[in-house]
Amino acid sequence: METIITSPSKKVIIDPGHPFVIIGERINPTGRKLLGKEMAEGNFDRVRQDAVAQVEAGAHMLDVNAGVPMGDEPAIMAEAIRIVQSVVDVPIAIDSSVVAALASGLEAYQGKALVNSVTGETERLESVLPLVAEHGAAVIGITNDETGISHDIDVRFAVAKKIVERAESFGIPREDVLIDPLAMPVGAVHGAGATFIQLVRRIREELGVNTTCGASNISFGLPGRPSLNAAFLAMIIGAGMTSAITNPLETEMVKAILGADALLGHDENCQAWIAYYKKQNKSGASSGRRSRRPRTK
Amino acid sequence: METIITSPSKKVIIDPGHPFVIIGERINPTGRKLLGKEMAEGNFDRVRQDAVAQVEAGAHMLDVNAGVPMGDEPAIMAEAIRIVQSVVDVPIAIDSSVVAALASGLEAYQGKALVNSVTGETERLESVLPLVAEHGAAVIGITNDETGISHDIDVRFAVAKKIVERAESFGIPREDVLIDPLAMPVGAVHGAGATFIQLVRRIREELGVNTTCGASNISFGLPGRPSLNAAFLAMIIGAGMTSAITNPLETEMVKAILGADALLGHDENCQAWIAYYKKQNKSGASSGRRSRRPRTK
Repeated sequence: METIITSPSKKVIIDPGHPFVIIGERINPTGRKLLGKEMAEGNFDRVRQDAVAQVEAGAHMLDVNAGVPMGDEPAIMAEAIRIVQSVVDVPIAIDSSVVAALASGLEAYQGKALVNSVTGETERLESVLPLVAEHGAAVIGITNDETGISHDIDVRFAVAKKIVERAESFGIPREDVLIDPLAMPVGAVHGAGATFIQLVRRIREELGVNTTCGASNISFGLPGRPSLNAAFLAMIIGAGMTSAITNPLETEMVKAILGADALLGHDENCQAWIAYYKKQNKSGASSGRRSRRPRTK
Repeated sequence: METIITSPSKKVIIDPGHPFVIIGERINPTGRKLLGKEMAEGNFDRVRQDAVAQVEAGAHMLDVNAGVPMGDEPAIMAEAIRIVQSVVDVPIAIDSSVVAALASGLEAYQGKALVNSVTGETERLESVLPLVAEHGAAVIGITNDETGISHDIDVRFAVAKKIVERAESFGIPREDVLIDPLAMPVGAVHGAGATFIQLVRRIREELGVNTTCGASNISFGLPGRPSLNAAFLAMIIGAGMTSAITNPLETEMVKAILGADALLGHDENCQAWIAYYKKQNKSGASSGRRSRRPRTK
């Protein structure tokens, strides 16, 4: 079952038989005060840079979040979407917890967007899903509801099922719903990776829908985060995960994703893997090996 | 189902509920001419160094292979086993395709060894399994037979089943058989990682036995081998793999393994993961970050 997201010139296919889709996470003021301040002031230079850098580093899509404290989020979102679409041609995930910001982002967007996100809370379902349906977009469904995030796999699966079914009732086909099984920090939630893998498999087998997640959350509070995220990504791709919102500027994570694609036969003749190393060697030769890895502060 | 391998002072448990077991691969003259020459001459200095370095780097067991061209393999194997056991206390996998070398290795070994390996070939089963039974050892069963290595999952699974059943008929309990699903080079065999994962799951579900493999083979002929091996390891541990014969001196691979253990809840409070980073930072501070990674030529 293929989830298709588009821009005017690009089509991204999210599907277990295709290469894993990297949704760049960087355009998000959460935890990036300076970016938030600039966006609120109407300065989108850093947004432009982040857009270009992430696509160059291998992002197939970009997540755009305009959650600036005290800012006019719907207006900033629309502007950010227009600006990102003016500098890169990949499709976009419109990321907000504010329904009006999702609406103005969808209005501004050229193509079939991915709405990030709806939860299993009734009020969210009833306000976000009609918007998604109206714009013919796809949507990310997060497996929590009014009762919070359950540690019980059955409960989280039931939330996923509820979202898929409610979306269908609004005329949103199952292939346009990506479920996020929720990567909980493994330092706080024992064995969170195992729970996640079981959920990914069950969602695939019983609902047949595609999946995404904010992968970096898994390593929260632990040392060696890019390495732990890389292990997590390889592991969940092996379990059938189809996309993630993550940082393509972290080379360890990109290598885990490209490696997993090659291992699963989603990279014909390992061409992408080989090309990645050729490119690395080239930039290593011209600028010195130590500078190959972009800084991500 | 726990596979237990012992030395006089250590017990290693191989089981999907326990941390992944790293079996150090370095003591093997295949592709290491100098090591082979030295072993044939009775010089075991490098064997001693390799044993200590691998255990310090995190190996829970060591593989010992004495396949020196034109050498007296049974005699060299016995000597190598005695020497390794004199410098480190981890259990050993006795690795040979020569039955007499397995026999002399088992004679020399103190503890319950792991015999590496038997295939599904009738002649091998009938010569290796009685030895394993006689010494109360455990054994690795490789999923190929007289007809070679099949690309058909059903055929490879049938070979695994045959090995487990023949072992039982010799009085070797199922928990003392580790199946190697065979990691084929993904550069030559399209989607070899996907086949491997399906086999690991099926072996676990239908035979209930533990698994091991020579992990590095998957990346043969491709650039970035440690990174690809690392992605493979994380992926197969997520699928239920319990051990691998691999190179603990490659930090990327060790990080993937420790990360996978933490993610699956096999590392209480992520202690091993945190300790690994503390140790890295310490050695980084004293000797410079660039020298942290041991060379493995």
